[in-house]
Amino acid sequence: MDATGVDALLLSVGADLPYLTGYEAMPLERVTMLVVPRDDDAALVVPRLEAPRVVEQPDVFTVVAWDETDDPLALIAGLVGRGAGSVGIGERTWARFVLGLQEALPDTRFRSATDVMAPLRMQKDAAEIERLETAAHAVDRVAAEMHDRPFGGRTESDIHRELAARILEHGHQRVNFAIVGSGPNGASPHHEAGERLIGDGDVIVCDFGGTMQGYCSDITRVFVVGEPTTEVRDVYAVLFEAQEAGVRAATTTTTCESVDAAARAVIDGAGFGEYFVHRTGHGIGLEEHEEPYIVAGNRQPLEPGHAFSIEPGIYFPGRFGMRLEDIVVAADAGPRRLNEASRELAVVA
Amino acid sequence: MDATGVDALLLSVGADLPYLTGYEAMPLERVTMLVVPRDDDAALVVPRLEAPRVVEQPDVFTVVAWDETDDPLALIAGLVGRGAGSVGIGERTWARFVLGLQEALPDTRFRSATDVMAPLRMQKDAAEIERLETAAHAVDRVAAEMHDRPFGGRTESDIHRELAARILEHGHQRVNFAIVGSGPNGASPHHEAGERLIGDGDVIVCDFGGTMQGYCSDITRVFVVGEPTTEVRDVYAVLFEAQEAGVRAATTTTTCESVDAAARAVIDGAGFGEYFVHRTGHGIGLEEHEEPYIVAGNRQPLEPGHAFSIEPGIYFPGRFGMRLEDIVVAADAGPRRLNEASRELAVVA
Repeated sequence: MDATGVDALLLSVGADLPYLTGYEAMPLERVTMLVVPRDDDAALVVPRLEAPRVVEQPDVFTVVAWDETDDPLALIAGLVGRGAGSVGIGERTWARFVLGLQEALPDTRFRSATDVMAPLRMQKDAAEIERLETAAHAVDRVAAEMHDRPFGGRTESDIHRELAARILEHGHQRVNFAIVGSGPNGASPHHEAGERLIGDGDVIVCDFGGTMQGYCSDITRVFVVGEPTTEVRDVYAVLFEAQEAGVRAATTTTTCESVDAAARAVIDGAGFGEYFVHRTGHGIGLEEHEEPYIVAGNRQPLEPGHAFSIEPGIYFPGRFGMRLEDIVVAADAGPRRLNEASRELAVVA
Repeated sequence: MDATGVDALLLSVGADLPYLTGYEAMPLERVTMLVVPRDDDAALVVPRLEAPRVVEQPDVFTVVAWDETDDPLALIAGLVGRGAGSVGIGERTWARFVLGLQEALPDTRFRSATDVMAPLRMQKDAAEIERLETAAHAVDRVAAEMHDRPFGGRTESDIHRELAARILEHGHQRVNFAIVGSGPNGASPHHEAGERLIGDGDVIVCDFGGTMQGYCSDITRVFVVGEPTTEVRDVYAVLFEAQEAGVRAATTTTTCESVDAAARAVIDGAGFGEYFVHRTGHGIGLEEHEEPYIVAGNRQPLEPGHAFSIEPGIYFPGRFGMRLEDIVVAADAGPRRLNEASRELAVVA
């Protein structure tokens, strides 16, 4: 906060609050907010009816409960103080609370708390990396199990339900998403599993993850029903090489954008550049997507402890799509993949 | 928008966007935003990789896809135009987007889009009420089924899992929450189901709901393991009467705060006023909690088509708690409960 000139942090929904306190705000219209003044003790402002859920930590914060007829934003503004020149507010805080606090603190400049929090959260310590690895190995097992399962004759939704159930079975507390994009639907990178019946020759993108001990998993593998065509094999070979190149480039002597460029160069070189319509990856930790983003224009240098996905994709609209994703941790000894599931194109029944 | 003096609406995550377009924004760091200028056509700004998910509706909005290296906030600001005096932004929009748009539109006043949207969304039409009713009847069946199920010897988490599974079985697409608060945990209104083993004599608060065809259900019933004590019966009788009084008061000739007062008066009258620590209810529709809020200080008059919960509670810290909840629709013919599950204290094994 000293380094960034922020007089107070205001943290609500999102991962900054649990990162600092272990407590997660409920995403409701009753505001929960941790007020962290630069030179004073922190206070957690919570609705009275949620106060019993808070495990008090007097050395970290005090609890200030508000009643249904109180004005919690006035309470928060009072804790910040009218003299604050600049506050950092959690980036997922609801607009209604941002606008209300701006009104209550008209002389204060509001900026994103991410300026303060991202440098802390990006650098995972050994315990955090261990949790990311445990979660990664759990989805690795799900991916491995799917190799022996039939896909043909089932709907995307049916595969989705199976993935969700297996994610929980293998120890996650929460399923965050389970994309199943078959045939032409695979060309829609964020496709929602639907009632499409999977048939012979279909390429299927399965991208799934959950939360385990607070930390997220995220993996993408490609399945094909029956013997793949030469085209599918060839495109997959390009994707595989692009992902390898991205992982190899993810050293602690480079920047995020050059990792993106390394993966992209392979796909560009094969003539598929226009079909790789998204960035190469995103940071991962308490949230599925967090800094650092592996994207053109991001000159953030990779540092030991940064954890992120490497997930190039190739999408042919109306035909099929593919994406291959692992979680990687940057280290001085070189990039380390957390996922160990086979990266071969999986031929299934 | 004319009536409220808003030059443009900016709708992102939350229910305003699906209410108007049927499309739900993904809650991610890549912004999705519908720009609705007062005197021009609406445009849905979406990340390129999510554009294939959008079902285009040329008579409702055009699609503007942005690429990973574009600045989507500059794009949105351009669509709004620098001449806009006042924009209404969706109340759940992430702070990072609010702050970025304020920077891009320095002469524009930002306010909550709820000023425009809430009056529309509060007044449910017949089709919306039918969906709320279908969802209500589905959780009614779950509540009824739990009467025959054993609670003693099981953990709260185990009951939670059963409720979640039954909510889906009865046709919901999504489980929104399933609070199971047993014994002293029942005195924490938003208790998260944990590993506490339920025992003889325990009072258990079960408050659960999900989303079905876009609309939400929400019901609370109280269970007790074995024959309840006289105290439990007496407190439950007060709660039952308070809920009845709240429902009876919910006519179209009154205000939200007077409905709250009617339920509260019964609990106050029995000497338990200090143990009823929350408002009497909340509106429900596309979101579990929306306007109108049934709370002291809310002078909003109830109107035909308003749908909301009536859910007084009595919580004795360290001992036990109780809450009883139904969804009610205001109508000229009188208040109409959508839930039909028995409201008797349920004695279970």
